[in-house]
Amino acid sequence: MALKMKRTVYLKKKTLAEARTIVSTELMKLIHLGTETIPVIDALGRVTGEPLYAKISSPPFHCAAMDGIAVKAEKTYGATEESPKSLLINEEAFFVNTGNPIPHEMDAVIMIEDVHLTNSERVEIREAAYPWQHVRAMGEDVIATEMVFSENHKITPYDVGALLASGHEKIKVKKKPRVLIIPTGSELLEPGRIDLNQIIPSGIIESNSYVLYGLIIKDGGEPIRHHIVEDNPKKIKEALLSHHEEADLILLIAGSSAGSEDYTHSIIEESGKVFVHGISMMPGKPTLIGRFKDRPIIGIPGYPVSAILAYEELVSPLLYQSLHLMKPDRMKIKVFPTRKIPSKLGTEEFLRVKIGRLGEKFFATPLPRGSGMITSLTKADGIIRIPALSEGLNEDEASEVELLRPVEEILNTV
Amino acid sequence: MALKMKRTVYLKKKTLAEARTIVSTELMKLIHLGTETIPVIDALGRVTGEPLYAKISSPPFHCAAMDGIAVKAEKTYGATEESPKSLLINEEAFFVNTGNPIPHEMDAVIMIEDVHLTNSERVEIREAAYPWQHVRAMGEDVIATEMVFSENHKITPYDVGALLASGHEKIKVKKKPRVLIIPTGSELLEPGRIDLNQIIPSGIIESNSYVLYGLIIKDGGEPIRHHIVEDNPKKIKEALLSHHEEADLILLIAGSSAGSEDYTHSIIEESGKVFVHGISMMPGKPTLIGRFKDRPIIGIPGYPVSAILAYEELVSPLLYQSLHLMKPDRMKIKVFPTRKIPSKLGTEEFLRVKIGRLGEKFFATPLPRGSGMITSLTKADGIIRIPALSEGLNEDEASEVELLRPVEEILNTV
Repeated sequence: MALKMKRTVYLKKKTLAEARTIVSTELMKLIHLGTETIPVIDALGRVTGEPLYAKISSPPFHCAAMDGIAVKAEKTYGATEESPKSLLINEEAFFVNTGNPIPHEMDAVIMIEDVHLTNSERVEIREAAYPWQHVRAMGEDVIATEMVFSENHKITPYDVGALLASGHEKIKVKKKPRVLIIPTGSELLEPGRIDLNQIIPSGIIESNSYVLYGLIIKDGGEPIRHHIVEDNPKKIKEALLSHHEEADLILLIAGSSAGSEDYTHSIIEESGKVFVHGISMMPGKPTLIGRFKDRPIIGIPGYPVSAILAYEELVSPLLYQSLHLMKPDRMKIKVFPTRKIPSKLGTEEFLRVKIGRLGEKFFATPLPRGSGMITSLTKADGIIRIPALSEGLNEDEASEVELLRPVEEILNTV
Repeated sequence: MALKMKRTVYLKKKTLAEARTIVSTELMKLIHLGTETIPVIDALGRVTGEPLYAKISSPPFHCAAMDGIAVKAEKTYGATEESPKSLLINEEAFFVNTGNPIPHEMDAVIMIEDVHLTNSERVEIREAAYPWQHVRAMGEDVIATEMVFSENHKITPYDVGALLASGHEKIKVKKKPRVLIIPTGSELLEPGRIDLNQIIPSGIIESNSYVLYGLIIKDGGEPIRHHIVEDNPKKIKEALLSHHEEADLILLIAGSSAGSEDYTHSIIEESGKVFVHGISMMPGKPTLIGRFKDRPIIGIPGYPVSAILAYEELVSPLLYQSLHLMKPDRMKIKVFPTRKIPSKLGTEEFLRVKIGRLGEKFFATPLPRGSGMITSLTKADGIIRIPALSEGLNEDEASEVELLRPVEEILNTV
């Protein structure tokens, strides 16, 4: 093994708030999504790329709101049980079903149960209709030319209905931000390539990229996974050079720490700029924020929990911002720690907790705090942020916890 | 036009609560999803079909938590600045990077910055290491054979990481419930088939099926859309007979009312059973619940808001139940109506509202109440349920509203 004692050293560490500001300004400046035109029926979850105006009214014509006969209301005035009125079918009365257009000059619908058939040519009615009775007026829901959705609107299933009803077949939406994920590490194995029969496997299964993959999809991005690249600065740089133009944002996993094989810093310094190296958060400290050529790049730490927190605190807000969307907050409740929990002064800690309830109060028990423990996230009900300026949590002080599961699911398992 | 005066009549209407009970028992009995085996990396959002146990430990071996040298701690005891210890490279000290296995018989890692190179054969250390210093122990995160997830667990992006790390490449998941959507109505046009240059279009664009399509995807189901079938009992029955076996649940849109062209009731009565015809809810009254052959079927009303409410109150809970998942509640807040809002006694009404804030209080303004107004849902911030036994809302009484958007988005536009 070569003797590599050279190491990069962290620049002055930034607080998470400082890092987020740099991401939302310096990195955001580098992202230019553009738009594309797609069928409305494929637009669920996409973001409108321009204001959308109704092309037709909905309903597109006056139509029957009930099954029955369409009539001109004034022709029915005076009809009663005692003195019914007789109307000529297909001249004064037209059979219509719900949704059918109201024939020209008619303006009301009489429900079929109130219509009495005299013979095959005439019907009899025993009550007057008022104008527009049981008629859905043209444009009742949407009027042609009105704005149906503004720009930067995220399309829900309901919205698909409103768009189709207003005559849209295809619409202009923002392109999804493409996020290139490059996992690095000579010790890593592609999933499925491990020999489970060996007593001691020969490496560690690469899983971070697939976790980020799922998170990117949930945030409306388009993940592109590169295969594993070994800890070799030439190969890492090669991967970046070959693929950076395919991505709106690059996530380079591992190698952003300050160890002897952590090449991210020098590679980015060489071909771009390092804005942040090291963030005073835990897990997540060895995060790097920079620019490779003209593309924003985030060096994601290799430990699973660090990787996820770096993603959620920095990448996810950037994806929302690039789509001009507001990122929804997690639901929060107040909890009491089950015991005093010390935390390092000067570092913002993300403590994963299980939540229990006793009477009206909620209690939080910390899960293991190691950044290598993915199960501390899969088992967690929530996350407590311990601010950098706090030395920890006290048992008798309520803290705010951000919930990772719906509260009823937590209560159900309590 | 033929003279069709024959009509089905609603059976005794059921309350929504009664209808939900029938769905969760009678219809649920007919759904048998089964399982399938798929790659973990495609399993996001799927539901485990069996308990999953770790196949390997994570980490799979004792490994370095830092870049440095792996040593046997007891060989370092007594090392100080004044009397350093010298260790033979590749016999007493092994260079390791984060994630590398700890060589046999070694039990601690000394960080690279505390290692001093004497020559190419020896290193010098000036502080003792303690056993397991900077070592991630095998199984720290997951121990082989432990249960990683129970059955009926919905897989998040984090969970994908835990599954890969514990040696899973493929897993058994519940099959997605297949939901066949059949839109019916002679007045309907397929989207894109309308001539926008005609002053009065010739029909109404079919959009309900695409709204349901999106909602089914969101609820973890697999939608299958049938093309539009005209109002012809033979053709509707033909569509059901040809396709019912492809579906775990059938949604037949429109025709479940009590009009002359509403054939759903008689078709289902003929080839199965009608459990419910008519629900005392608004919108959503003309909903039908039944069985066609051995398949559960729900007759969805044709008006857009009715269709959505029938879906959300009856279909969505059934999909969650079939997957053994708990359906998350919408977030709720208290609001005051901006004016007195009367509502029909005996009918549960779903009032769509815009929400505003004045000081500490939230206020709700009702949107148009017609069941044909899809925009009353796309514009709504929330829905107030007015119970069947209430005659409406009073200005000075707080009501609970279920939010359709994140609260911060509502507040932002207030």
